[in-house]
Amino acid sequence: MKKGVKIATIGGGSSYTPELMEGFIKRYAELPIAEIWLVDIEAGKEKLEIVGAMAQRMWDASPYDVKVHLTLNREEALKDADFVTTQFRVGLLDARVKDERIPAYYGMLGQETNGAGGIFKAFRTVPVILEIVEDMKRLCPNAWLVNFANPSGMVTEAIVRYGKWDKVIGLCNVPVMATMLEPGLLGKKTDELIYKFAGLNHFHWHKVADDKGQDVTMEIIDQMYQEDNGLPKNIYDIPFERDLLEQMKMIPCAYHRYYYQEEEMLAHALEEYRTIGTRAQQVKRTEHELFELYKDQNLDHKPEQLSQRGGAYYSDAACETIASIYANKETQIVVSTKNNGAVPDLPADCVVEVTAYVGAQGARNVAFGPLPTAERGWLQVMKAMELLTIEAAVTGDYGTALQAFTLNPLITSGKTAKRVMDELFIAHKDYLPNFKETIERLEKEGIKVQDEVVRSMDLVNV
Amino acid sequence: MKKGVKIATIGGGSSYTPELMEGFIKRYAELPIAEIWLVDIEAGKEKLEIVGAMAQRMWDASPYDVKVHLTLNREEALKDADFVTTQFRVGLLDARVKDERIPAYYGMLGQETNGAGGIFKAFRTVPVILEIVEDMKRLCPNAWLVNFANPSGMVTEAIVRYGKWDKVIGLCNVPVMATMLEPGLLGKKTDELIYKFAGLNHFHWHKVADDKGQDVTMEIIDQMYQEDNGLPKNIYDIPFERDLLEQMKMIPCAYHRYYYQEEEMLAHALEEYRTIGTRAQQVKRTEHELFELYKDQNLDHKPEQLSQRGGAYYSDAACETIASIYANKETQIVVSTKNNGAVPDLPADCVVEVTAYVGAQGARNVAFGPLPTAERGWLQVMKAMELLTIEAAVTGDYGTALQAFTLNPLITSGKTAKRVMDELFIAHKDYLPNFKETIERLEKEGIKVQDEVVRSMDLVNV
Amino acid sequence: MKKGVKIATIGGGSSYTPELMEGFIKRYAELPIAEIWLVDIEAGKEKLEIVGAMAQRMWDASPYDVKVHLTLNREEALKDADFVTTQFRVGLLDARVKDERIPAYYGMLGQETNGAGGIFKAFRTVPVILEIVEDMKRLCPNAWLVNFANPSGMVTEAIVRYGKWDKVIGLCNVPVMATMLEPGLLGKKTDELIYKFAGLNHFHWHKVADDKGQDVTMEIIDQMYQEDNGLPKNIYDIPFERDLLEQMKMIPCAYHRYYYQEEEMLAHALEEYRTIGTRAQQVKRTEHELFELYKDQNLDHKPEQLSQRGGAYYSDAACETIASIYANKETQIVVSTKNNGAVPDLPADCVVEVTAYVGAQGARNVAFGPLPTAERGWLQVMKAMELLTIEAAVTGDYGTALQAFTLNPLITSGKTAKRVMDELFIAHKDYLPNFKETIERLEKEGIKVQDEVVRSMDLVNV
Amino acid sequence: MKKGVKIATIGGGSSYTPELMEGFIKRYAELPIAEIWLVDIEAGKEKLEIVGAMAQRMWDASPYDVKVHLTLNREEALKDADFVTTQFRVGLLDARVKDERIPAYYGMLGQETNGAGGIFKAFRTVPVILEIVEDMKRLCPNAWLVNFANPSGMVTEAIVRYGKWDKVIGLCNVPVMATMLEPGLLGKKTDELIYKFAGLNHFHWHKVADDKGQDVTMEIIDQMYQEDNGLPKNIYDIPFERDLLEQMKMIPCAYHRYYYQEEEMLAHALEEYRTIGTRAQQVKRTEHELFELYKDQNLDHKPEQLSQRGGAYYSDAACETIASIYANKETQIVVSTKNNGAVPDLPADCVVEVTAYVGAQGARNVAFGPLPTAERGWLQVMKAMELLTIEAAVTGDYGTALQAFTLNPLITSGKTAKRVMDELFIAHKDYLPNFKETIERLEKEGIKVQDEVVRSMDLVNV
Repeated sequence: MKKGVKIATIGGGSSYTPELMEGFIKRYAELPIAEIWLVDIEAGKEKLEIVGAMAQRMWDASPYDVKVHLTLNREEALKDADFVTTQFRVGLLDARVKDERIPAYYGMLGQETNGAGGIFKAFRTVPVILEIVEDMKRLCPNAWLVNFANPSGMVTEAIVRYGKWDKVIGLCNVPVMATMLEPGLLGKKTDELIYKFAGLNHFHWHKVADDKGQDVTMEIIDQMYQEDNGLPKNIYDIPFERDLLEQMKMIPCAYHRYYYQEEEMLAHALEEYRTIGTRAQQVKRTEHELFELYKDQNLDHKPEQLSQRGGAYYSDAACETIASIYANKETQIVVSTKNNGAVPDLPADCVVEVTAYVGAQGARNVAFGPLPTAERGWLQVMKAMELLTIEAAVTGDYGTALQAFTLNPLITSGKTAKRVMDELFIAHKDYLPNFKETIERLEKEGIKVQDEVVRSMDLVNV
Repeated sequence: MKKGVKIATIGGGSSYTPELMEGFIKRYAELPIAEIWLVDIEAGKEKLEIVGAMAQRMWDASPYDVKVHLTLNREEALKDADFVTTQFRVGLLDARVKDERIPAYYGMLGQETNGAGGIFKAFRTVPVILEIVEDMKRLCPNAWLVNFANPSGMVTEAIVRYGKWDKVIGLCNVPVMATMLEPGLLGKKTDELIYKFAGLNHFHWHKVADDKGQDVTMEIIDQMYQEDNGLPKNIYDIPFERDLLEQMKMIPCAYHRYYYQEEEMLAHALEEYRTIGTRAQQVKRTEHELFELYKDQNLDHKPEQLSQRGGAYYSDAACETIASIYANKETQIVVSTKNNGAVPDLPADCVVEVTAYVGAQGARNVAFGPLPTAERGWLQVMKAMELLTIEAAVTGDYGTALQAFTLNPLITSGKTAKRVMDELFIAHKDYLPNFKETIERLEKEGIKVQDEVVRSMDLVNV
Repeated sequence: MKKGVKIATIGGGSSYTPELMEGFIKRYAELPIAEIWLVDIEAGKEKLEIVGAMAQRMWDASPYDVKVHLTLNREEALKDADFVTTQFRVGLLDARVKDERIPAYYGMLGQETNGAGGIFKAFRTVPVILEIVEDMKRLCPNAWLVNFANPSGMVTEAIVRYGKWDKVIGLCNVPVMATMLEPGLLGKKTDELIYKFAGLNHFHWHKVADDKGQDVTMEIIDQMYQEDNGLPKNIYDIPFERDLLEQMKMIPCAYHRYYYQEEEMLAHALEEYRTIGTRAQQVKRTEHELFELYKDQNLDHKPEQLSQRGGAYYSDAACETIASIYANKETQIVVSTKNNGAVPDLPADCVVEVTAYVGAQGARNVAFGPLPTAERGWLQVMKAMELLTIEAAVTGDYGTALQAFTLNPLITSGKTAKRVMDELFIAHKDYLPNFKETIERLEKEGIKVQDEVVRSMDLVNV
Repeated sequence: MKKGVKIATIGGGSSYTPELMEGFIKRYAELPIAEIWLVDIEAGKEKLEIVGAMAQRMWDASPYDVKVHLTLNREEALKDADFVTTQFRVGLLDARVKDERIPAYYGMLGQETNGAGGIFKAFRTVPVILEIVEDMKRLCPNAWLVNFANPSGMVTEAIVRYGKWDKVIGLCNVPVMATMLEPGLLGKKTDELIYKFAGLNHFHWHKVADDKGQDVTMEIIDQMYQEDNGLPKNIYDIPFERDLLEQMKMIPCAYHRYYYQEEEMLAHALEEYRTIGTRAQQVKRTEHELFELYKDQNLDHKPEQLSQRGGAYYSDAACETIASIYANKETQIVVSTKNNGAVPDLPADCVVEVTAYVGAQGARNVAFGPLPTAERGWLQVMKAMELLTIEAAVTGDYGTALQAFTLNPLITSGKTAKRVMDELFIAHKDYLPNFKETIERLEKEGIKVQDEVVRSMDLVNV
């Protein structure tokens, strides 16, 4: 064994990096890191430098001697890395603003990982992650890839299916939040409950039992409908229909609201579009504030504000995953990983999100068994949609992209959907080299993003 | 063998009965019918008498000595029957008007076999068909059941799954129309082309080859986009996106428009709702005209107007199916039948709609093989939705009904969808005994159909 | 369409060729052949010339003007062929003698398509058929390949799986014999019964119904146990255990005797080995007699003696298959073909033997549905054994060959089985180029065929 | 929670009981047992009293106050039990002697869990375990059933499939032995290696990795072929063919020798049959010695001799399983349990033997993923054979029993196999009430066990 662990973080200029550092610092005893390489692209250089300096200050304030390297040279960072984490956003938040506002203009949902927005985020991200995998084959063939670039499930599926790279774990903070918040509803601690998750990223269900093996799922559901349940209140956290949950006898994930309460979720998104700005626009403001904080030369620990961000605990889950692999801890974590039969309603070779024991060989998935009829139908259609999206991202085939749009449960098929898809192609042309031919054709046909939308994007140039 | 075949037709008062008679008359040589029993319920007695007299006149005008019996006593009709055909509508056309207008009031699609309307038609029809199957077990255990009551696929699935009755074939005129019209596009006759269908009722795709084995599917698709292709023009026959069809390399069925062009199909339905009346209201007018014709004591053959009806060739397909079983003809027919592996993407024990060779043992399905990703996803979600619908129909469980609604690709989930579902329960209360508890609860909660909708239904009392 | 059909027959020097000619002659009206190319290798030149001359005489005696070309140049024969039939034996009958006598020496079964013999026949045949397929891709890419080289199922599987060639149909005379003989047991004709076969080549079961749809399988089984049932009597046609057949409610194929009555079948084979010679040695005598007949310049029709041969009706089935494809007849034939779900207990992409309607697009398999527990287990283990055998044939991997041997239900695993395998490698070294390394290693280890066995092979040099 | 755990042990008079006691005593801190009920039948009363007294002495010598109850009344023992363990032998060792000697007389393998012997052990055991499950439904519906009655996999399958009882875990000492012995081959400790098992009871394979995630399976295999590897030497531990293991890249279990080296294993069994007596006869001697030891009023701890017994560590595994469930420990144990997709080559609802994390909800199976071709074929045929055996045990159908015999890879089908089966029915008539009709028929036919066999069984009366 060489003297210490090398971590390479692609998209190192992210505002989440301090959480990642905090996670590594508190796990140093079991994960003796020697060097951390934060990689970003030219457009992210300024942010990289701010957050990189902050990261180094955090380590310097710790008892450990760890060097944080900043670079725009991905190859240098990947060379001999033990773990590679990916948290990049192709096109940055501005691209996400387009993913949201272009559909919204037409009354459709644009969302980071769902609907039209999620499909285009995959179109932009999949080719880049596959390049990274090719680099890893050359530069660090024994490394583990821990992905939390969104849409995390589709990105992980692309890595396994097209990258032919099995040493990957995809992560998400949604299950983390569930296991942190729900025990409180029953007056319990997390380790007093037994969790079993199955499904896809941002599309899973879970069951809970107490430490005597009694299923307490319905008790948690019951508490979720109490007035003073202590859960965080958000305007868009409209409750699920109770009859639905009582039939399924499982707890859906927060993102299921887009599918189970489509009407209300769309209305809320359009309201934000017309008023305070879409989610990405709000996040841009938060990010700006965070980077202002990070510039403070005296700040050497993760600021409280970061925990308020939507993706909180994402990075912590990543650190725990890495430590579990390194120290063969067999920690229970909910991960995106090759199915291997854990969800028998989906092919054994596709990627699912399930409870797993994570150790030196990666994820050992807990076999969940067959899902009930409704959830089986949902899963199968969503996985088909994911596979079409990834295939389109890789091949650049317009018809396949249209199939993904048409099959997506959040997209009402027809001429408006096609128009939205076409405008998104134009809007993201710089990040979709595989769709070059399609985009040239659309440009010739005169497709362009509506002026009103362009104007409403603030700093965004289309 | 006894001296002649006994046919029992449930819903014998249907306006389609003359087509059925015509079909039997022209096949008498291979299907020597002795007696036909037309059964209906009290509410359909007048229509039964009109169309029954007409049916007897048709046989009297033929060279064959066949007696048409009219009865309201189902048991008498089923006793020792060789073939039972089912073409009944629970709640008659008035119920279908409600299936259409109640969702439309809220901007949602109500359709005979799709969306909210299709689900409630299944809720009404499934319990009745299961009663009929129980009667058959007692009264004619060797008979074949040929179903064309809609939603034909779900009804056949219920017969097999809950009725445990395998001697059933479900029929539909949609594939018949395709095989009649498409050859003309290539200047061919039907028997010069090779057809292979797979999917579900009102949700199948097909491939076509010429008699040299060359796939001509893309040529037919190509012709479908020509101006003067000779296909019937209807306002709502908006074309499929060509990019979509070129990706799938199969021809979808007409009903796929609801899923592939949801926006336009909904707009069209809402336009009719606001103007000339929904489809059922139009059909009521046609039916009225047909029965006026049938009253004519001199009319002794199927009038041309009947062929203009949406369901044309339905009954002819039924006659061909019965003749094929009786005479072991092994005719190629597209039928709803137990899968047995023909569509390997769906369980072997569920009902699918596929090309089959029909003979004395019923349907011998042609194994279609796995479908491409998009079509597999569509099929799996639709079959799950069907299974939930049937389960709800049998159990009367509200949560299961809500799951079916939520999973249905044509229903935008949320409070409006739930409201529509609740109003449909109230509207159809007389025909939903399994949902008695739910309906009482909803009544207590004050759910009722909107006055405006009630008024717009003409003769319909809610 | 060009002016006539070109047929190329690989292994044209076979004694079966006259049956093939007879089949073509009687179907000339629907299959207008212009030229037939009989191909063979140098070692088969003499037989090719004898049977080729005989074949030309048969056509000359017919009303049709067809030219029979004889050649050792496979490429010339394949060029622009419409149909290619394959009936070759790598290593001729002498190789089969070795397949039989080497295992028999050690008390094990050697059989043409089963046990150790079948595995080595596959080892020899698969590489050659894959070469032919590569030639076809260049020389006649639109042709159909009709295979009856044994082991027919494994050869067809290799063509589809490794050759990536889907326009293939594998044939066997066993189902033909069943459908010819069984109706007589019930006093019926073939077309008065409905047959449904499923399984693998030389390992299928079937069900029978009458033309009223009544299952008569058990009645046929009943007749099979009657003394004077008119079935051909052979010493080795020992009856199946009746309790077994009553449990399965299906009729196994003749080759199932090796699996269901392993003890008796092995005893019989060893008895022949010690006395009259193994089957191949008997066949050699028959072949010799046939070729003597064929030399008769006056013989211009298939001699009766050929019908007594084990493979009778094989060639006729091939002619019917070709005519059905050419004229899009949709004839019911039992064929080896890609599963596509017809046998849902096996993967959709493997080759099975099932009832199919054969037309211009090849086989349209009848979906049989799931098999009962015992037959499912048999099928799955046999298909796995087939796949291992083919994989070993293609890769030349010794361990994979040993896995196939170990898994084969007719081979008792252990040191004798390994010894038999090793000697077979040595014995067939000229025909197993893919196993070159293995054979060199075995030679170094001093493995050789037992002298006694060599002596007993007559003309066979090892 | 009541004041302590109640354990009921069916077959409490077993010689293994002291190991069970030792296991409970050393885990008392986490598994606070209050009472243990040892149940046996009249025929086992003497042994129950001897071993029961010994068990109480063991507790009395411990610091814990636990009462060991002895009873012939199963209901009394089951009443309100928390855990039920089953280790009974229907017909005691004498029945096993018959399972071995009757086949051996005819040159066939009789073995406790494999071949003809294993099938008849299942025939005797399945009806009894299903009675126990019915009792549990009434008397202790919340209890867990921990089975180690053999054939453990089939018994567990019967409990789940026919008993409809999911709170069951089946155990075996074979994987325990592997994980105890193999690390030493690499100079490692058990917890430094990562194990993944999949298959069926007495028919599984496993892979091993080190704590850095590197697969070390091939290194262990390599060591297994070294002369001085420190593994226990037994005459029948003939080595596997190395080529086979190198192809599978997994380690088979010890019982795989019966399948991979059938010739040698049979020869060894027949040699013992002719000389020192079959395995059960040897075990009888060992048992006799053990009970002599147990009679010693001063003995209050497990004697060393018990560890030499074949089933060593079985009971310890049971104690660990019970403690893990009780204290929700999530211990990694290899168990027989409902598949749920962990072995995707077998149905999700059948019982498999896999690595699982055992806690308060029972087994959380680690999804193994698809097996390679050969192992898939083996598994599928073995599971089919198991299902047929269990079905025959439950229905008493002779044909189904014959199917199981015919499909069993260790039984050469034919008249001898049938004769062996028939004699076993006669020999075990007292324990096969479901086969009453069959046995009466066979008695009428004059089937009886060979005198020589009867004589050779010593104390056994047939």
